[in-house]
Amino acid sequence: MPRYAYVNGRYVPHGDATVHIEDRGYQFADGVYEVITIVDGHLIDEAPHIDRLDRSLNELRIGWPVTRRALGFLMRTLVRRNRVRSGIIYIQVTRGVAPRDFRFPKGAAPSLVMTTRHMTFGSPKLMEEGVSVVTIPDIRWQRRDIKSIALLPQALGKQQAAEAGAFEAWMVDPDGTVTEGTSSNAWIVTGEGVLVTRPATNAILNGITRLRILRLAGAAGLRHEERPFTVAEACRAREAFISSATTFVTPVTRIDGQAIGNGVPGSLASALRADYLAFAAEAVPA
Amino acid sequence: MPRYAYVNGRYVPHGDATVHIEDRGYQFADGVYEVITIVDGHLIDEAPHIDRLDRSLNELRIGWPVTRRALGFLMRTLVRRNRVRSGIIYIQVTRGVAPRDFRFPKGAAPSLVMTTRHMTFGSPKLMEEGVSVVTIPDIRWQRRDIKSIALLPQALGKQQAAEAGAFEAWMVDPDGTVTEGTSSNAWIVTGEGVLVTRPATNAILNGITRLRILRLAGAAGLRHEERPFTVAEACRAREAFISSATTFVTPVTRIDGQAIGNGVPGSLASALRADYLAFAAEAVPA
Repeated sequence: MPRYAYVNGRYVPHGDATVHIEDRGYQFADGVYEVITIVDGHLIDEAPHIDRLDRSLNELRIGWPVTRRALGFLMRTLVRRNRVRSGIIYIQVTRGVAPRDFRFPKGAAPSLVMTTRHMTFGSPKLMEEGVSVVTIPDIRWQRRDIKSIALLPQALGKQQAAEAGAFEAWMVDPDGTVTEGTSSNAWIVTGEGVLVTRPATNAILNGITRLRILRLAGAAGLRHEERPFTVAEACRAREAFISSATTFVTPVTRIDGQAIGNGVPGSLASALRADYLAFAAEAVPA
Repeated sequence: MPRYAYVNGRYVPHGDATVHIEDRGYQFADGVYEVITIVDGHLIDEAPHIDRLDRSLNELRIGWPVTRRALGFLMRTLVRRNRVRSGIIYIQVTRGVAPRDFRFPKGAAPSLVMTTRHMTFGSPKLMEEGVSVVTIPDIRWQRRDIKSIALLPQALGKQQAAEAGAFEAWMVDPDGTVTEGTSSNAWIVTGEGVLVTRPATNAILNGITRLRILRLAGAAGLRHEERPFTVAEACRAREAFISSATTFVTPVTRIDGQAIGNGVPGSLASALRADYLAFAAEAVPA
């Protein structure tokens, strides 16, 4: 069974899935993307992901490649063709193909590319042991609220983390505050038990999982604050964790080698992860 | 006569030139590029351009896709096949194709893509009338010294300039100093006749044309300084101009609508442009 990719109107075997060398995604990083988790064949938080895609496209003034309704149909068709019960769908939209010129081309049709991947999300080992993060300077551009494919600094940061034996890198602004991970949002639980994460400004990407956790925390009556926190405060925190579409809630037990709390996954992170998994399970139509 | 592109070992008709959707250039902007001017079929300042490509690759730890000697051969073959006497060659190298993961892939072969374009460089109108620039905040990442394909902010800036009726946008750091244009370096001539351009740090891309102009200015005995300058100083300057591989030296006569000097191209810019054209002509083997 070949794995298919969707590329501009066609479902093609993954190995044959190509775009033109003058697609502006390839020459200018002029595009945006989304990653949506698939649980039991169902797209989790599909609507807010597509809302965010719409926002990213609007911020960059890239048109929709197909209607929103058509996109939903195409996504589901790809997931079904690839028989993905558990995994992710990756959706990329660029400004399209045009002779190389920094200025926006006139009349170019936006490109739409989608792939899927089978994944399992149990990750009991990560939950039992927690993950390490390292901190690095945040050298990215100032529009981190746009989910653009200009991900070079994030790739460099994630590689730096991997070489330091860490799962993720937390990026730190010049004022010493943590912005976010290279592909996740950053959270701490203070000594007073307050859940803290950075507010959604241009300094971070507003994670869909981040938003979901804030709602779950609110529903559970947890005290939570949206404010920046420093590396020093994170190191003194009772708990720390990261969130993203593929890691859900994953506890952080070490920051730059220093143990957080008692060095094992915290109870609040574990509870929020359970809440998130329950939400995802409930989101699947019976 | 079809126009060919070079893509990973093959010369293919331009319209058929594609890369895989999981080329990291398409998903992560994980690549670098160069643009070299062609005059009378000859590549101008080829060696320093390829030196800079080497530096960009090293900074990102991307391997050479072919040997430097082979690249020279492949470039010249493409220029000859496409019968380009006057124009540019565009060279792009990415980290290669791999399943999507922020971390560097193991064993992926770097991708090499090249295209050419016929252009004429006389531009008498631009020289006679000069161009306008607008100033915009520099929102880019902090490694602007790497000639990466993560060009989304530059594309947005150039589009903003175009919509303001300007040829280029000068980007301005939070301290009020001009960094550079979206695809060119920025220069002024002070009231005392001193040529000023920003020093080559991580804040700008060190233009090959910029370096050539500094050498030509030195050879001509012109006073010149490498230091940052503010927008206010630029507006008070006697002259202003931009430099790049395709604009050479192009006078700037208006900044944010305000006339520079007496509002016409300056004599120093004209002299440097003439020097540059003479250098390019001399660089062509007889």
